[in-house]
Amino acid sequence: MNDSINRQWLVGQVEDHGPGLSLTREHYVYHEATRPEIQQGEVLIRTIYLSPDPMNHAWVKGWSEKFPAIPPGQPMGGGIAGRVIASRHPDWAVGEAVTGFLDWADYSVSDGTDHLGVPLQRVPADLALASGLTALGMSGLCAYLGLSMVHPFPGETVLVSGASGAIGSLAGQIALLGGNRVVGIAGGPEKCALVQQLGFHEVIDYRQGQLSAQVAELCPEGVDVFFDNVGGAPLDAALANMAIGGRVMICGGLSHYGAESVGIHNHIQLAMRSVSMRGFYYFDHVDQWPKGRRQLAHWLRDGKIVEAFDIEDGFEQVPEICLAQFSGGVKGRKLIRINND
Amino acid sequence: MNDSINRQWLVGQVEDHGPGLSLTREHYVYHEATRPEIQQGEVLIRTIYLSPDPMNHAWVKGWSEKFPAIPPGQPMGGGIAGRVIASRHPDWAVGEAVTGFLDWADYSVSDGTDHLGVPLQRVPADLALASGLTALGMSGLCAYLGLSMVHPFPGETVLVSGASGAIGSLAGQIALLGGNRVVGIAGGPEKCALVQQLGFHEVIDYRQGQLSAQVAELCPEGVDVFFDNVGGAPLDAALANMAIGGRVMICGGLSHYGAESVGIHNHIQLAMRSVSMRGFYYFDHVDQWPKGRRQLAHWLRDGKIVEAFDIEDGFEQVPEICLAQFSGGVKGRKLIRINND
Repeated sequence: MNDSINRQWLVGQVEDHGPGLSLTREHYVYHEATRPEIQQGEVLIRTIYLSPDPMNHAWVKGWSEKFPAIPPGQPMGGGIAGRVIASRHPDWAVGEAVTGFLDWADYSVSDGTDHLGVPLQRVPADLALASGLTALGMSGLCAYLGLSMVHPFPGETVLVSGASGAIGSLAGQIALLGGNRVVGIAGGPEKCALVQQLGFHEVIDYRQGQLSAQVAELCPEGVDVFFDNVGGAPLDAALANMAIGGRVMICGGLSHYGAESVGIHNHIQLAMRSVSMRGFYYFDHVDQWPKGRRQLAHWLRDGKIVEAFDIEDGFEQVPEICLAQFSGGVKGRKLIRINND
Repeated sequence: MNDSINRQWLVGQVEDHGPGLSLTREHYVYHEATRPEIQQGEVLIRTIYLSPDPMNHAWVKGWSEKFPAIPPGQPMGGGIAGRVIASRHPDWAVGEAVTGFLDWADYSVSDGTDHLGVPLQRVPADLALASGLTALGMSGLCAYLGLSMVHPFPGETVLVSGASGAIGSLAGQIALLGGNRVVGIAGGPEKCALVQQLGFHEVIDYRQGQLSAQVAELCPEGVDVFFDNVGGAPLDAALANMAIGGRVMICGGLSHYGAESVGIHNHIQLAMRSVSMRGFYYFDHVDQWPKGRRQLAHWLRDGKIVEAFDIEDGFEQVPEICLAQFSGGVKGRKLIRINND
């Protein structure tokens, strides 16, 4: 590695840059800049891990006031974990482990906040840097905050879609800590085995048989809480099997991030069974992140929650790895290591 | 009218009697029984009005533990308003006005509760009998309870679908009493005129132009509360235009009661904008009915809310009037008068 070069992935110039845009290989443009210098009040961060989230669609397209589109020619952004390698900022020392929404590049310059105006987050020195993008990152916080908003109660049945994924696997484990009966939905024997290893009481392989019937069989008293990361078919199957007064958390909708939404057909069950369904936007809840991070760090240290990592190496592979996520290939927290720690 | 005859509509014997059933003319079988006698502890009610609700689908098909299917050969049931014409029950006197879920027939016998085990409801003597099935019935209570659960706040924008219908017209008027900016959605000039007469600030005719664009134009700061009676296209249009932290009440889903649900495609907006969407099942909230009825009666007496009635006469017409409801012909509270008061 040449330390004076700053490898970057820029947003490509593609004609259809509207809200219906799905990312394709052409949106990723490789660029080499020079390593940036910092000014007073800034830190220089060397990126170790990039986090290829489905949310990168949103990042590039711009889905809300707090998540504006990145114009073509600018570096792509996303969750990164790295080290402070130079600091002229009073709060940050060289060597500290840090995460934030920054450039998809070897180096990012920060004034102490990330591209969303959120303060950079410290990863505790006794925990793995990769945990900063997993249990202590968006995955863990979405699981923690999302589940808290649909208040599972001990003994209730909690169903989790995308149960082998970064968020789903943690949501299920937190529900287990709360004394719930936890059922996961995943695809294929390998992912189902992972879900079982994490201690879920039951696992449904959505590739084996009719999903709604499987949910009915394994949740005979109905689903009290459905934690959804997928949308589409799993959401319809859960809605058809909710208990009266059940709660649905729309944490993500992998099947809806592309240009074409597959839709759902059972929402009227909300009225039939007094069910509530809510979502939450991670960046609307920045004030709750510190409490969540502290709790998640405790559980991680105590071995109460386990992270499943799926780490790949290579800056060059970023576009392919990102795009592959939408075909459902994720098992645990996918990270791309672009530099050695 | 021959007072010794009890005209009834029975549930017909139709092969496909499963949950996917849509009502057809064959499900209504005319029958003449003799006028029933009452025992100690019972009242005899003569029916004046029948309430042809879309919920009759549910009634016949059975959609929940509290709403079991009616077997073929039994009288159909639904909301009725009538007079006590004989009583051997200590709580009821001859001449009192009463509503409940009872037979679609000239006469019903009751032990003081209706077919759902709910106590019969008295209509105050100073109010119209038809109000017992409108502002003081399921329509008014669904509007009152449903709106209360999504807590509109003064100054917020409340969007109502099915705004010319019995529930939507009352929900919009209650939102007006709460200091909200109220926008209704209805179909065609006649229904839109009714909505405007009721004092809604704006009316959208869904037959005129693209619905989502119309909502965006009339709700430039987003929809804080969407009160939905329809599902499908209006729900998708609202979801595309919710304010951050917005709330959606799924009160009904006329477009979803038939065998085929049209589906929705924008539910991921729940996650993008921290929106919650809930339904409630009227019969899960019996304990809240009395408070709601008292409030609605006050508003009715004070002229704060107005009911729109659409009354037709004739027991013979019941099937046709019921079935016509699913083609969106309703303007205000449709009632069928089968006997004179």
